[in-house]
Amino acid sequence: MAMKILFAGAGALGTRFGYMLFKNGEDVTFIDSWQEHIDTIKRNGLKVIIDDKELGNCNISIYRPEEAKGKYDVVFVATKSMQLKSMLNKVKHLIHDDTKIICILNGLGHVDTLKEFVKEENILIGVTVWTSGLGGPGILKAYGTGKTEIKQVKEDNLDKTLKLIEKLNKSGLNMNYSADTYQSIWHKAGLNCVLNTYCTLIDCNINEYGSYEKHLDLTRAVLNEVTAVGRAEGINVNQEVIEKNIENCFDPRTAGLHYPSLYQDMKNGRLTEIDYLNGAISKLGKKHDIPTPVCDVITLMIHSKEHIGGNK
Amino acid sequence: MAMKILFAGAGALGTRFGYMLFKNGEDVTFIDSWQEHIDTIKRNGLKVIIDDKELGNCNISIYRPEEAKGKYDVVFVATKSMQLKSMLNKVKHLIHDDTKIICILNGLGHVDTLKEFVKEENILIGVTVWTSGLGGPGILKAYGTGKTEIKQVKEDNLDKTLKLIEKLNKSGLNMNYSADTYQSIWHKAGLNCVLNTYCTLIDCNINEYGSYEKHLDLTRAVLNEVTAVGRAEGINVNQEVIEKNIENCFDPRTAGLHYPSLYQDMKNGRLTEIDYLNGAISKLGKKHDIPTPVCDVITLMIHSKEHIGGNK
Repeated sequence: MAMKILFAGAGALGTRFGYMLFKNGEDVTFIDSWQEHIDTIKRNGLKVIIDDKELGNCNISIYRPEEAKGKYDVVFVATKSMQLKSMLNKVKHLIHDDTKIICILNGLGHVDTLKEFVKEENILIGVTVWTSGLGGPGILKAYGTGKTEIKQVKEDNLDKTLKLIEKLNKSGLNMNYSADTYQSIWHKAGLNCVLNTYCTLIDCNINEYGSYEKHLDLTRAVLNEVTAVGRAEGINVNQEVIEKNIENCFDPRTAGLHYPSLYQDMKNGRLTEIDYLNGAISKLGKKHDIPTPVCDVITLMIHSKEHIGGNK
Repeated sequence: MAMKILFAGAGALGTRFGYMLFKNGEDVTFIDSWQEHIDTIKRNGLKVIIDDKELGNCNISIYRPEEAKGKYDVVFVATKSMQLKSMLNKVKHLIHDDTKIICILNGLGHVDTLKEFVKEENILIGVTVWTSGLGGPGILKAYGTGKTEIKQVKEDNLDKTLKLIEKLNKSGLNMNYSADTYQSIWHKAGLNCVLNTYCTLIDCNINEYGSYEKHLDLTRAVLNEVTAVGRAEGINVNQEVIEKNIENCFDPRTAGLHYPSLYQDMKNGRLTEIDYLNGAISKLGKKHDIPTPVCDVITLMIHSKEHIGGNK
């Protein structure tokens, strides 16, 4: 029997996973608030372009949150970090007692938000290396493949979840249940706490950031705080691994010429995810009485820049 | 008898004071390295425009450092902060045992440099609110008036210095010998440690900086370090005064629409004075074992931005 799967957020990653599940016969529904995107998909279906090949249009249901009805077995939350809470408020009528929520948003602090809406054994938190993009309203335009590490926050009735993952993987999602998921989330967040913010404030791409002879001093100013706070949270943060991952991004043949997502959000007048990166470190630092002066001041500068730019 | 006065650096402020002293009959000589500026002044004299009034051309001697000869009674150092040491090396043959060096450069750490070249009783360190500008090579273009606070580093034979100041003031320099000079230097540097750097990294003018509701958190992140380090140095830093001075700059009718000098240096591809602002706080923090994480990371970001911009 097809699973009823809701995507709370039909952006780049949401439409990519939704498309894979739909193609494999699952009962997929998108929720979004971007009217032009909704209208285009309602009219033409989701246009799918992967690795520059047009794969046709998929007639996947899409609604504004208030239009959707019924209950879903699985809800993927696929919003920007700062929209998670308001999205959960908008879709909570679509969740029943056994609905599993899958959250692979970037950044830190999402479990606390999710816990306000569903019990911990229904929260699957993860981190993905899949990438994706939109080529305009109604158009999924993505490249390559990826994988996702995932973990249930409270590991009761884990069998059910492992079966769910098996089912999802039949659509090619390549999910891997892993006890190290929190560590991976923190390692990815740590990298973003460094590259996203410094590239934005210095105004440079990743390769340029790495070209300054003292980049490691800048990197460590942030990562020392990330590591201390993460360990206080019980996460086995391995700072050397994050430093190595950052250096691996410098190469212009990999990510070096890329401007991080926060840089692009700032440039394009959007609010950034800073509160789920360095801002989350500051907040958790206060909780554990660990000073985080560098993350504090970086968070303030990014918010100041958003304010002055009139970002929204 | 006319005093022999050398200006080591014939930039905006150097030419302004030099002009005032020359007009009052003192024996003024400029030293500079900007060839077009030197050639223009040699050919036409220094063209003086004050408060938009053309006051004619003054035939003041100007040389490259290696061309100058003789000994001078007074040397005004009027370079960028980072050029002080190399300039002192270039003009040391023009200094005798009783030459007074007057240094009113922005920023911190200049006394240590000056002490490598002259004894402490010959060093007059100060802080000025005079402003000035160049309207191109050979053209002084300035507005308003100002005053300068000044103090002898080691107060031996102070009578001689007080007489010198009296003489300089006959040319309208409006110098005031003050025991509080160090405090004033630190108060001005503290303001610059905040506004110069944040405006550059956030990319905004002073009014915009002040428009962010949490600007005081940003300000204090830097000033807490400035105050702690300054007090360890024995300076009576009054942080409230600096905070008030900063807020007074926000008004668009005063300095609000202004982009600080470091912002302009960065934008125009020049090296900045960061090592004499937040960089000096970091250095002095290490000396006193006071952590300065915010000044450290701001200094690194500014240097990174200089590096990536190819500034020189």
